[in-house]
Amino acid sequence: MGIVIEPTQELRRLQQRIIDAIAAFAAEKGTGAAFAPRPDGAGISQPTVDYVNSFVGPRTGMNYHPHLTVGIGIRKSVDALKAEPFEAFIFRAVSVSLYQGGIPVSHREGSMSSTPADPLPSWNEGPAKQGILAFVAKVTKEGSPDFLPLPDRVAVYDNDGTLWPENPMPFQAAFAIDELKRCILTQPELDSDPMVQAVLAGGLAELLAGEHFDGLMHVLALTHAGMTTDEFRDAVEGWLPSATHPRYGRPYDELTYQPMQELLRFLRANGFKNFIVSGGGADFMRVWVERVYGIPPEQVIGSTARTTFELRDRGPVLTKTIDHLFVNDKEGKPVGIHQFIGRRPAVCCGNSDGDHAMLQYTTINNPRPSLGLIVHHTDGEREYAYDVETKSTGKLVEALKEAPKRGWLIVDMKQDWNTVFGNE
Amino acid sequence: MGIVIEPTQELRRLQQRIIDAIAAFAAEKGTGAAFAPRPDGAGISQPTVDYVNSFVGPRTGMNYHPHLTVGIGIRKSVDALKAEPFEAFIFRAVSVSLYQGGIPVSHREGSMSSTPADPLPSWNEGPAKQGILAFVAKVTKEGSPDFLPLPDRVAVYDNDGTLWPENPMPFQAAFAIDELKRCILTQPELDSDPMVQAVLAGGLAELLAGEHFDGLMHVLALTHAGMTTDEFRDAVEGWLPSATHPRYGRPYDELTYQPMQELLRFLRANGFKNFIVSGGGADFMRVWVERVYGIPPEQVIGSTARTTFELRDRGPVLTKTIDHLFVNDKEGKPVGIHQFIGRRPAVCCGNSDGDHAMLQYTTINNPRPSLGLIVHHTDGEREYAYDVETKSTGKLVEALKEAPKRGWLIVDMKQDWNTVFGNE
Repeated sequence: MGIVIEPTQELRRLQQRIIDAIAAFAAEKGTGAAFAPRPDGAGISQPTVDYVNSFVGPRTGMNYHPHLTVGIGIRKSVDALKAEPFEAFIFRAVSVSLYQGGIPVSHREGSMSSTPADPLPSWNEGPAKQGILAFVAKVTKEGSPDFLPLPDRVAVYDNDGTLWPENPMPFQAAFAIDELKRCILTQPELDSDPMVQAVLAGGLAELLAGEHFDGLMHVLALTHAGMTTDEFRDAVEGWLPSATHPRYGRPYDELTYQPMQELLRFLRANGFKNFIVSGGGADFMRVWVERVYGIPPEQVIGSTARTTFELRDRGPVLTKTIDHLFVNDKEGKPVGIHQFIGRRPAVCCGNSDGDHAMLQYTTINNPRPSLGLIVHHTDGEREYAYDVETKSTGKLVEALKEAPKRGWLIVDMKQDWNTVFGNE
Repeated sequence: MGIVIEPTQELRRLQQRIIDAIAAFAAEKGTGAAFAPRPDGAGISQPTVDYVNSFVGPRTGMNYHPHLTVGIGIRKSVDALKAEPFEAFIFRAVSVSLYQGGIPVSHREGSMSSTPADPLPSWNEGPAKQGILAFVAKVTKEGSPDFLPLPDRVAVYDNDGTLWPENPMPFQAAFAIDELKRCILTQPELDSDPMVQAVLAGGLAELLAGEHFDGLMHVLALTHAGMTTDEFRDAVEGWLPSATHPRYGRPYDELTYQPMQELLRFLRANGFKNFIVSGGGADFMRVWVERVYGIPPEQVIGSTARTTFELRDRGPVLTKTIDHLFVNDKEGKPVGIHQFIGRRPAVCCGNSDGDHAMLQYTTINNPRPSLGLIVHHTDGEREYAYDVETKSTGKLVEALKEAPKRGWLIVDMKQDWNTVFGNE
């Protein structure tokens, strides 16, 4: 049997801080070898290994059920415990004592102090942080007229430029270029493709040139279509550990914004369901978002094209095409939100005019309380500075103009974030 | 503070039985008037009303956190309790007693007996029921080589013919025809539309005639496009209580199959995330699925067409079109599953050849354990009998042929279900 403690926000935060503290030492896919050996020498069962590997996320945060498992001990163990005194540790159950069969279990008294922790430690004090805290406080307060029932706690986040950088080019474009280089090794005929030559020589500029993005479409057709969804997933999984960001020299998936990771967790801990709503490819993101953001694949809305289904000798396969391309950007974002989620979000975080429409959709004349937030890239030293003036793949002009009128929070990266990636 | 009991499957089942027992008396949207009045005469706060209205689903089943809330009482209340003796009730916490400040709270002994309840009481004993129970037992048993980690517990269900009937016509087609009749009242010019005349005269046959379903497309354009998503939702919400099934004389949303409702709950209680994967329109289903099946809108995959986003004076609107129509049927179902969920399901329930591809996608060469299930409509007395021979909008020919080879469970409605709708 188990005795379960009502999980408080503080306890969830403590758990998150422990997860964060040990994250650097955590292996993504541990094996039985990581366990203390069993006294009988038997191996550790795969389900137990899987349980531990899949603990963070499915069993933490809102899914965390803190409990004390209680069982019957054998006399030998109890005697051994008594014979081997250990230093008293701090633990107090202020108003509960445990009995077993009417006989009190000896328990040690002490106290576990708990000062309410700052849920957003990477955020400096200021209007952005205060705005977030005030919003969450009001919508989670039962009895408040602004209280949001759980099903309505839907938060959407752009990815490129909002949760991780989009410079010097969107990370998925870096993947496409690296994929081209890899494909040339086995398909030398690509070498003579003028578009491929231009993209490999010119990089992003060539990719995005032309009114109909012919270069991009061509490269997408070569690198994002014609293979099965499993093959594509393997390609992304193989690329991530092999590639590093040209400026930071670190793998791309280690470059998420620490303050936004805290915001994801803070909202999740307050009952929000987080969805990524990005112009990036859904298939590209779903490979790593669960591990990196704790967001399962079905909560990722991205650009898509239709796959085709086929039953081959070795089993069913889905083949990627670029037909019926849906670009989940600008006006496409509220369209994607409606198609996938089917209800209006309460929180929307973006960083560019590509997020303007979903900021409007979330906040304007919404009968329920809502929050719009724009990450403004003001920090050229630690990251990249751009908006109206400076060139970047993300542009922030119209949404920034409209923000004061709509009450959208502007996050000034330089002022509001005391760390960008969490390890400076 | 609260003391929480580890929620067992039996406890969840008990809760579900209570929910089922009072379902007939539950109002969909209760008000504060349904509460016992407060001693101070004040009204019941809206969040409290909302909490109760949204309790079933978001706070039950897998979301159920059974607990005992403990607080400090005042002497007067305790004296009143003591002065007013009540009959002993049955309650035993076998190995836990409660203390408050070191002073034992008097507690009454007794016992709460709990025989493991049948999770599928509407299913007769037989290979279908045994197959379901055996599958769930093996994939949820920690230590078993067939153990499925939580994130992989994805179950998909067809709707028409699997969770509710699809005869004499799919219920959404009945909606479309009723909508046409309603539209004619305000748009008399429709009366002279030859296609509208034919459909209203001939019903389903005319709707589905022609190689390119011209009639259906025309009626869809009239009844499912051109309005905002809010207007469409209001139309469906208005239609449901106004329409009844021609044979059963009951509202369509009361005609779900009780045995399948039990299966939905049983799998949910065992950690599965249920998704509807239907040829029906996503916008049509999302209006009522959460209330009827306990499945939130973001877990509904259906046929879709693109909406367009627009910021009007009164706020943002999404307008329905029939552009980029995606028919989530046949080979479209695995395509839709990949697009929305992004991983292969472990359980797939269908009833027609429209579900054949997703049955294959779920079960063939799946490295993880999987279950395919086909509802075979064999009961013309209680429902409709059809498969190879008989005409229906759903046809079951190829999938039925392949079932033995693939090990898909065939549910014989007549033999396997002791009730169809739960109230015969």
